[in-house]
Amino acid sequence: MAVKKSRESIGKDLRRIIDADKVKCEAEDLLAYSSDSIRYYAKGDPDAVVLAASVDDVSKTVKYANDNEIALTSRGAGSGLSGGSTPIQGGIVLDTKRMNSILDINKGNMTARVESGVVLANFHRSVEKERLFYPPDPQSMDVCTIGGNISTRAGGPRGVKYGTTGDYVLGLEVVLADGSVINTGGVCVKTSAGYNITKLLTGAEGTLGVITKANLRLVPLPAHSKTVFITCDTVQLASEIVSKIIYEGVIPAVLEYLTAGAMGLMNSYNPMPIPLDGQAYLLLELDGTNSAIDEDVAKLKSICSEMKAKNILAIDDKNQADLVWEARKNLSPLVLRILKKTITEDFTVPRDMIPTMVTAIGEISQKVGIGIGMAGHAGDGNIHPNILMAQITEENEKKAIEAIDMIAKKCLELGGTVSGEHGIGLHKSYLLALECGQTQIDLMKRIKQAFDPKGIMNPGKLWTEAVS
Amino acid sequence: MAVKKSRESIGKDLRRIIDADKVKCEAEDLLAYSSDSIRYYAKGDPDAVVLAASVDDVSKTVKYANDNEIALTSRGAGSGLSGGSTPIQGGIVLDTKRMNSILDINKGNMTARVESGVVLANFHRSVEKERLFYPPDPQSMDVCTIGGNISTRAGGPRGVKYGTTGDYVLGLEVVLADGSVINTGGVCVKTSAGYNITKLLTGAEGTLGVITKANLRLVPLPAHSKTVFITCDTVQLASEIVSKIIYEGVIPAVLEYLTAGAMGLMNSYNPMPIPLDGQAYLLLELDGTNSAIDEDVAKLKSICSEMKAKNILAIDDKNQADLVWEARKNLSPLVLRILKKTITEDFTVPRDMIPTMVTAIGEISQKVGIGIGMAGHAGDGNIHPNILMAQITEENEKKAIEAIDMIAKKCLELGGTVSGEHGIGLHKSYLLALECGQTQIDLMKRIKQAFDPKGIMNPGKLWTEAVS
Repeated sequence: MAVKKSRESIGKDLRRIIDADKVKCEAEDLLAYSSDSIRYYAKGDPDAVVLAASVDDVSKTVKYANDNEIALTSRGAGSGLSGGSTPIQGGIVLDTKRMNSILDINKGNMTARVESGVVLANFHRSVEKERLFYPPDPQSMDVCTIGGNISTRAGGPRGVKYGTTGDYVLGLEVVLADGSVINTGGVCVKTSAGYNITKLLTGAEGTLGVITKANLRLVPLPAHSKTVFITCDTVQLASEIVSKIIYEGVIPAVLEYLTAGAMGLMNSYNPMPIPLDGQAYLLLELDGTNSAIDEDVAKLKSICSEMKAKNILAIDDKNQADLVWEARKNLSPLVLRILKKTITEDFTVPRDMIPTMVTAIGEISQKVGIGIGMAGHAGDGNIHPNILMAQITEENEKKAIEAIDMIAKKCLELGGTVSGEHGIGLHKSYLLALECGQTQIDLMKRIKQAFDPKGIMNPGKLWTEAVS
Repeated sequence: MAVKKSRESIGKDLRRIIDADKVKCEAEDLLAYSSDSIRYYAKGDPDAVVLAASVDDVSKTVKYANDNEIALTSRGAGSGLSGGSTPIQGGIVLDTKRMNSILDINKGNMTARVESGVVLANFHRSVEKERLFYPPDPQSMDVCTIGGNISTRAGGPRGVKYGTTGDYVLGLEVVLADGSVINTGGVCVKTSAGYNITKLLTGAEGTLGVITKANLRLVPLPAHSKTVFITCDTVQLASEIVSKIIYEGVIPAVLEYLTAGAMGLMNSYNPMPIPLDGQAYLLLELDGTNSAIDEDVAKLKSICSEMKAKNILAIDDKNQADLVWEARKNLSPLVLRILKKTITEDFTVPRDMIPTMVTAIGEISQKVGIGIGMAGHAGDGNIHPNILMAQITEENEKKAIEAIDMIAKKCLELGGTVSGEHGIGLHKSYLLALECGQTQIDLMKRIKQAFDPKGIMNPGKLWTEAVS
């Protein structure tokens, strides 16, 4: 690294190259940017925060950081769950939230072009007005930005039918480490033109470049939807039903797994429309035309009867269905009414391994002596184990770390991935090496080097050792 | 490069490190591997051909090539259309066709694991027996291998609804330049764990590593299908109908555009079930449940009536529908009954730019003075212009090159891509730079360097200058 600049001179320099009011250096600004929403992992105070309003601001800031070998961490809303935008080596945090224009919605080509700071829920509303649909739906959608979604390859409940963010990104405008700007991919739904830089940057967590604009694929807005509850006597049966219904060609837009405990909490928020007499529940949303939905419901009923599910209810009243989903969305805050802290994990296993994984998590909970809830996207194997702490004590924190480590290793043993949709960031970097192996980590480091020879882009993430 | 080994010593060395009967060095073997199926572009005789039967064979061959700085071109069936597997710098051709085992079809997780030499049509048949479906369908499916499909990010008619090969690859076993073996991705339908090496290798045309195995995502086999013909008075109207039907949520499995000329040829092969009185035709296959298909047909009829299409026919007789698709599949050989040579291009434009592109191609045909047919996958903007030569003359070859260059530049001007599904290979390398810009090409070269520091992997492809 070059001679380290002082915090003061970084601020001064930045105010010379971009509008002074876009550069924040007060202690309270720096504190606000010291971590993403997982505040209990390592933090790091940045030396300056830049509120970029254009690709030109980004380019100038990145070039300055590169010329002076200053760490640069780009960030959307900071709603990440793995420490990805925590500036652990200080330096500059580049906030992209002011770059929030939806530049184009093309109905004929069914694509949109957006700046990376657009808030996801705003984008949902804008395209839905045109009867178009952008499926990715991480639960932070009211605050998270599309740039952040792309950088973490974010998922969400609709993944089971529609895939995740990575399936909708057609092209990117990216600022590279030297400040140059490239446009990757394009607006065509198919292309075989050279290396897929678009997909490489999607999920790179800001370590290869700063995403400033994106071309996104849209699909037709489904005309109707219907919510269905399935009650099962055992977790095993619920998991088997998940595999069976998908194999039989019923692909719900959302397919959630809920424990009896989770259902109890949801019932305390809004009374659930079914008896709470099961051990495991599936909550589905079907979408499409009315006749397709009717056909799917008939198939579901036949499967549930054949496989001896305890109960199946298709909710006809739209308001009642909305109340159920509202309760589901509030599950995390509900848990925090009775517990002091929860840690939501996103370990994901092959769909047919869900029963094995659920059993293993129960055993780990017993063995370590800490509660672990589960409420996840069963359809794609993303079961979201939740470490539950009645009290925040040193002992409980230790137990949580132990349980997470055991779950991660079990997940890998079953052919799963240590991150289904949150990203690796800081918190999971030691697990990435277990999943990929050292040869592949070394390859990733060489790719990083090809993009960012000085190692300024979000350093200290993805793997445990720094690149430079 | 190190001291160049003689052809004789390369053969001898290879026979020492792998079974002698897997190494071919006779002149006729070398000739057979001197190009892919586009024989009229540059050829290059290899020094030896290795018929690898295992990842171990591949690893040993690659390590030998790397240690001795010998060019290595991996190849599936050699059915590519852009010179991608033509060994223009000689060296070793690594044929993967003997690695043709389907290792696993997992119905519960809806994935398969295959060796890269599996022939696509064989794989289709195997999964369909299990009522599963692998949509990618390049028209060479009876010979092409899945490894080749992945390396070129191959598409096919079903792209409009189901996407292309890249959308189905979940994980890869890859031999890197130094002979080491990595497993990328996995078998989960979602993951946010590190750089997406899987997607980077998909479409890399053998320049970054040799793909030896793949984990593929499967979907439920559609229960039914129905073929529909739409006749239009103008190309403009046909294009507008394409955009409209997709926007209205009717997503056909296949949506082909056919000129009056193409229909005439198809009619000479099998009588078409509609009057041939239009200027442009759309040929659709809808798939799904019967009620969903009925609903789609009703919507299509309403759209066609509203937009004043000349005719719409839903073919109820399955045999008749099969005959139509057989004629469509035989369009290329049919053209070659009356012409001496055709060049099939895969320039692709945004869907709403199809009418502009079709008009421009007509004008280019007039201006250059050479016939250009069109029969393509209109639903995804991939209109496959076909340069038609009644005679193979130097003048016609010159005109073809001129026309292709003009079409490519028009395509880029309209926001399109120079390769929708064939790959860049040799033939389109000068166009990739026009599409991506030099900064991005330089980045691709640095990525290549990160994988293949000695530049042995399929050298001379993707860009016009060699890497080393």
